[in-house]
Amino acid sequence: MDEDLKAIDMKPLFFPKTIAVIGVSKNKVSGLKFVLANYMSGYVESGGKVFPINPKYKEIEGYKIYPSLFDPEVPDIDLAIIAVPAENVPNVVRDCGKKRVKFAIIFSSGFGESGLEDLEIELRKAVKEVNKYTRFIGPNCLGVHNPYSKVCYYPGSVICPGNVSYVSMSGGHTGRLSHWLVSQGTGVNNIVSIGNSVDLTAIDFVNYFREDPVTKVIALYLESIPDGRKFMKVLKETTKIKPIIIWKGGQTEEGQKATKSHTGGLAGSIEMWKAMAKQTGVILADHFEFFADAVTAFSVKYKLPKDEKVCILACGGGIAIEYSDLCIKNGLKIPELSEVTKKELGEVFPPVNTSFTNPVDLGEYGYIPYNFDKALRIVAKDPNISSILFVREAERFVLFQNVLGIPNMEKITIDLMNETTKLIDKPLFCSTSPNSQEVEHYTYRYTFKEKMLKIDVPVSDLIANTCRIIKEMVAYNNYLKRNAKVV
Amino acid sequence: MDEDLKAIDMKPLFFPKTIAVIGVSKNKVSGLKFVLANYMSGYVESGGKVFPINPKYKEIEGYKIYPSLFDPEVPDIDLAIIAVPAENVPNVVRDCGKKRVKFAIIFSSGFGESGLEDLEIELRKAVKEVNKYTRFIGPNCLGVHNPYSKVCYYPGSVICPGNVSYVSMSGGHTGRLSHWLVSQGTGVNNIVSIGNSVDLTAIDFVNYFREDPVTKVIALYLESIPDGRKFMKVLKETTKIKPIIIWKGGQTEEGQKATKSHTGGLAGSIEMWKAMAKQTGVILADHFEFFADAVTAFSVKYKLPKDEKVCILACGGGIAIEYSDLCIKNGLKIPELSEVTKKELGEVFPPVNTSFTNPVDLGEYGYIPYNFDKALRIVAKDPNISSILFVREAERFVLFQNVLGIPNMEKITIDLMNETTKLIDKPLFCSTSPNSQEVEHYTYRYTFKEKMLKIDVPVSDLIANTCRIIKEMVAYNNYLKRNAKVV
Repeated sequence: MDEDLKAIDMKPLFFPKTIAVIGVSKNKVSGLKFVLANYMSGYVESGGKVFPINPKYKEIEGYKIYPSLFDPEVPDIDLAIIAVPAENVPNVVRDCGKKRVKFAIIFSSGFGESGLEDLEIELRKAVKEVNKYTRFIGPNCLGVHNPYSKVCYYPGSVICPGNVSYVSMSGGHTGRLSHWLVSQGTGVNNIVSIGNSVDLTAIDFVNYFREDPVTKVIALYLESIPDGRKFMKVLKETTKIKPIIIWKGGQTEEGQKATKSHTGGLAGSIEMWKAMAKQTGVILADHFEFFADAVTAFSVKYKLPKDEKVCILACGGGIAIEYSDLCIKNGLKIPELSEVTKKELGEVFPPVNTSFTNPVDLGEYGYIPYNFDKALRIVAKDPNISSILFVREAERFVLFQNVLGIPNMEKITIDLMNETTKLIDKPLFCSTSPNSQEVEHYTYRYTFKEKMLKIDVPVSDLIANTCRIIKEMVAYNNYLKRNAKVV
Repeated sequence: MDEDLKAIDMKPLFFPKTIAVIGVSKNKVSGLKFVLANYMSGYVESGGKVFPINPKYKEIEGYKIYPSLFDPEVPDIDLAIIAVPAENVPNVVRDCGKKRVKFAIIFSSGFGESGLEDLEIELRKAVKEVNKYTRFIGPNCLGVHNPYSKVCYYPGSVICPGNVSYVSMSGGHTGRLSHWLVSQGTGVNNIVSIGNSVDLTAIDFVNYFREDPVTKVIALYLESIPDGRKFMKVLKETTKIKPIIIWKGGQTEEGQKATKSHTGGLAGSIEMWKAMAKQTGVILADHFEFFADAVTAFSVKYKLPKDEKVCILACGGGIAIEYSDLCIKNGLKIPELSEVTKKELGEVFPPVNTSFTNPVDLGEYGYIPYNFDKALRIVAKDPNISSILFVREAERFVLFQNVLGIPNMEKITIDLMNETTKLIDKPLFCSTSPNSQEVEHYTYRYTFKEKMLKIDVPVSDLIANTCRIIKEMVAYNNYLKRNAKVV
């Protein structure tokens, strides 16, 4: 087998039986937080063992502290977390090797990213000496989270298992995508913050995630990559099997300059990244909101549209125009519907305040879930279109319930759509088109979106993102048609 | 005075003493809703009088119904709402003229936008006959709303007075921006949905809003404009005094095609609109979220940045890079800070996990409101920059309150900023950088944003919008420098 594509067994990292936290102190933002995180998350309760280490203490907040990794009471360690001052890290790295710790996360920062190049050189030397025994994540990182094993890097993490595996060079962006996915019920699988990556890089994790059956979609936040040739090869091999979405931080010269003091790598131009994405079938994101929406869309049992031809189903002329503008700007097409489709729509909806050309304006009657469902089924049969983009303003369900006298509009909508998506082969995309920021209205959108994702319909508040996701899904489909047979 | 710039007295429209609703029936989505709206909003309670008219009824839902506009009990009418079937509209229009009604809103649709060109021609003829007595809004529109007079077009409208006046060709987009502004506490002033505009057009309203002292910012959603030359003249005259933000619906060929069945006008290419915006100092929006954020930013007591040079204040390297990318992509500059600034920041913040070049990464210590306030004051003095873009993740206040032991972090942040904005002359822009969709976290962001707007700091969840707003404000400032002296 090709060495570049060989996956390291990362079970001891994501499903450790034992965790040592080296450098706990009374400061809750350093080592102690890992101890608390893993006690609070249920890791210890489900049989995991945590060994806090610091020769200066015997006990902190009721936890027994061990003097050293080599204390006779400390067993074999799957995962060590190194949270000591930067200058001590190289020695602790060597200790991890000596102890035959399987994986170690270097939480400490203050290396190349802070201009301390000498210390980073020393660290890299120490890592090289022992990495046949121990593999390292970091420095300058948060480490790993897995809701199945309940390993956590932050106390109070919500355990929400999903199928998204994520590697990030930024600690902030690690938490951000992860919280976002958890908060919408999508959940996560393997989450890893890799910081400066002196040993294991995104490449190693992508190789592991490719083979991991629970991972259905791979998300990466990267500022640089150490080996472009190898990375390309690994991406190509992986996108044939599951989608990869990369948010490249530092897309502009100024942004790249800032990456230097952040994770310290060499960034490469955005043109290079774009070319790489095109050649490997990777979806490229350029800001958080799109990144999060794209990862979400691929985390459901998605259908890939066969081409750019979209049917827009709206209630209201203004919104139909807005969606048309955004589809076209994002490279999609809004072809004329067949005469049969128009005729059938005309049998369900009145002629005034409606329009049966594409974009379709169903008028106020389109708010009635039964009528809307009929419209979905009618347009889905049209040979001129390949996907359906529709609006459901969940925040107005209660208003329309009262006006139209249909109680429980949300439930009816979801139930009908759940049946309909199974009967039609064209993908559906939903946009909620927010009207109000009030908490009550937000809550309607929020619960509706969660339910739509559960029935595998991609949904977003931001129509521009949805249009771009449709376009990226078409591109990914085309990429697979050209390349997947090679598998 | 130039006839093109003459403002019609619209007091009887926005502050009517009497309203006639012609064509009430038991159907709650037609005429009756205007009656209900104005009873429920407090219009009647504050002395306004509503006269529902229909010869077929004597009473509906406890309201007395009058047989005709010419009934002796119906007094002089400031505002009539015409909600009869399209084919009867021309006759009712003539009746309004005969009765010397001052303004009439034609709510009915089914004219040019539905392909019924003949009926629209007849309507235009009738309007022309009587518009020396009566001025008309619509057809195919919602009409007007004013929270000061409590005139409403929808039952249950929240009365929230503000300084934004808004004209929209789409009923849906009328409600959308209006709800959005009300839901964030910004409120609205004169709101008008004009539909196909057979008589009064956006031009007439802009002329009125220019003279209206309560209006501080003008928002327009337009799909077409009847008289480009006159419109340009009016825009030029107005932007010298107050900002105008236009969302152009139908920016693409397909979008324009869709406007035909919506409001029926001739749209003009987006290039033409862009050229017009540049020549008149108008800010052009291309989707709802930017439109809403831009209107909001101009609704506060804003300061215009003198040029593109922005200082980014972030907590976290990933976010600093994200904001740098988006600033540069939106045509802004992130210049190097002066040595004095870097030195002073170094006196407040530690050297590890921070970066004092622009973008500034304040690290975790930047979450402490007192430190953050010091950073604001330090960078505000830097001669190399003209505005400050900063991050406050309101949803994490509670978390950091507990970690850092600072209770009431939101209040301290707002109070300090309220003092600081008064002392510094450079504009501040805030981004909330959402991490979580949970209702609890959303609520923290929502209340924080409302409070930031109250102390006149523009704020948004969407960083791309904020960057674009800064750029547009710089452009508007440059426009004013070149043109405002002509006033």
